[in-house]
Amino acid sequence: MPSPDIKGQQRGYVIPIGGAEEKIDNPEILKKFVELCGGSDADICIVPTASQLEDTGERYQKIFKELGAGNTHWLPISDRNDAKKEEYVTQLESCTGIFITGGNQLRLSTILGGTPIAQTIRKLNAQGVHVAGTSAGAAIVSQHMITGGNTGIVPTEDGVNLAPGLGLINTIVVDQHFNERNRLSRLLSAVSYNPFLLGLGLDEDTAAFIDGDNEFTVVGSGAITVIDPSDIEHSSMAEARSGDALTLLNLKLHILASGSRYNINDRKAFIE
Amino acid sequence: MPSPDIKGQQRGYVIPIGGAEEKIDNPEILKKFVELCGGSDADICIVPTASQLEDTGERYQKIFKELGAGNTHWLPISDRNDAKKEEYVTQLESCTGIFITGGNQLRLSTILGGTPIAQTIRKLNAQGVHVAGTSAGAAIVSQHMITGGNTGIVPTEDGVNLAPGLGLINTIVVDQHFNERNRLSRLLSAVSYNPFLLGLGLDEDTAAFIDGDNEFTVVGSGAITVIDPSDIEHSSMAEARSGDALTLLNLKLHILASGSRYNINDRKAFIE
Repeated sequence: MPSPDIKGQQRGYVIPIGGAEEKIDNPEILKKFVELCGGSDADICIVPTASQLEDTGERYQKIFKELGAGNTHWLPISDRNDAKKEEYVTQLESCTGIFITGGNQLRLSTILGGTPIAQTIRKLNAQGVHVAGTSAGAAIVSQHMITGGNTGIVPTEDGVNLAPGLGLINTIVVDQHFNERNRLSRLLSAVSYNPFLLGLGLDEDTAAFIDGDNEFTVVGSGAITVIDPSDIEHSSMAEARSGDALTLLNLKLHILASGSRYNINDRKAFIE
Repeated sequence: MPSPDIKGQQRGYVIPIGGAEEKIDNPEILKKFVELCGGSDADICIVPTASQLEDTGERYQKIFKELGAGNTHWLPISDRNDAKKEEYVTQLESCTGIFITGGNQLRLSTILGGTPIAQTIRKLNAQGVHVAGTSAGAAIVSQHMITGGNTGIVPTEDGVNLAPGLGLINTIVVDQHFNERNRLSRLLSAVSYNPFLLGLGLDEDTAAFIDGDNEFTVVGSGAITVIDPSDIEHSSMAEARSGDALTLLNLKLHILASGSRYNINDRKAFIE
């Protein structure tokens, strides 16, 4: 279940980014995130836990500053003990935006899962704080997170591994570096486990800015591939043996480039 | 225009194969082709023109013999003069099945296009002779053939190059080695030029056996990705600048593994 709406408050934006977002030349996505968080009034908190590079937090801090963010800091959380520290919870609570970096999404879920930091991110988002995540950070925002998949090129019954994510939103499953890494098959496997899921395949340097009403705008240089299985007529998922190519009849497909919009609740794509 | 039906005669099967079809262990596709052509009564003519390997014709001759074909021969056509030779036309006219090998589809179109050999293949198919093609040989069967595309990972206005093919069927556009070579974007570019086209993305070792009523069965170990743009609600194709990511709203998508069927005229997928 996603964190419940708090009475009278609108959930903040949830912003999965497909990885490798432009940071210098035309940092459209990061710039829009900074503006959304308040520009010179923004207080952006970076969670670099997915990354094992020491300078990831500082690097994003510098980028956000250059883009005009009033205040920025990063939380050096690298194990579950760190994720329980009150000082980090306090730092989070003053922020207007949270940015989760790339790396390994299993580090995010194993280190943050169930901790005060995860609970605080959920609570703050429900209260209106915006949460963006890139690459691994994009995977974690949803309730159902892709952790990996086999290298098969057709969707199969065992073609993808799912794990619980942060659950800021629960009806989507996100895959990142989507066309760059040929991930259609594993996203198809994921949505066909349970067609209540909507699949979002995010190309690099491409983001979904999902507002509190679950409608999103596409920002960036690539596209978002939306796989909507809600009208699926047949799936061989339940009968398929391990490795069998799946049959999936009647999926809806949208390719959404910059400026197009999608309503997740209504399952409807349109142009701004 | 596809070759017109001849009164009282049913068009032979048109059988695009996604390349790398199994030849020894479980040669399901080639076996089914031999059976369709009459098994021990089959007379299969191989057109290895796409290939620049000298033994391609002989190699397939051997395979079809091992699969029980009564008679097999291959036409050593490697330039346009060869493609006008009456003896080759005569050899073709006695056959029950024609097999077009892989290689370079531009060799097929530039060498065979408009010649008596191409005309004879079209006429014979209209009279009931089955025509299979693998890889480049699959691309050529349709009226609109993909000859290449850029390496971009999103569909774009200039993301694919089309050329006229043999035109045995005119409403589909075929891409081969589909998931293996991450070709979703170029197939999406192709179908969005003109949504009368239906896109068939054929994985390796996977074939569409398209009967005279334009209904096909999927045979092989992979899947066929069907992109049906007939209900497309918006395409940015006409306005996009070179290299822009396209927006395409409301495409239909089917993933068809072995045993599933699709009616090209009705645009309807189902299970056998």
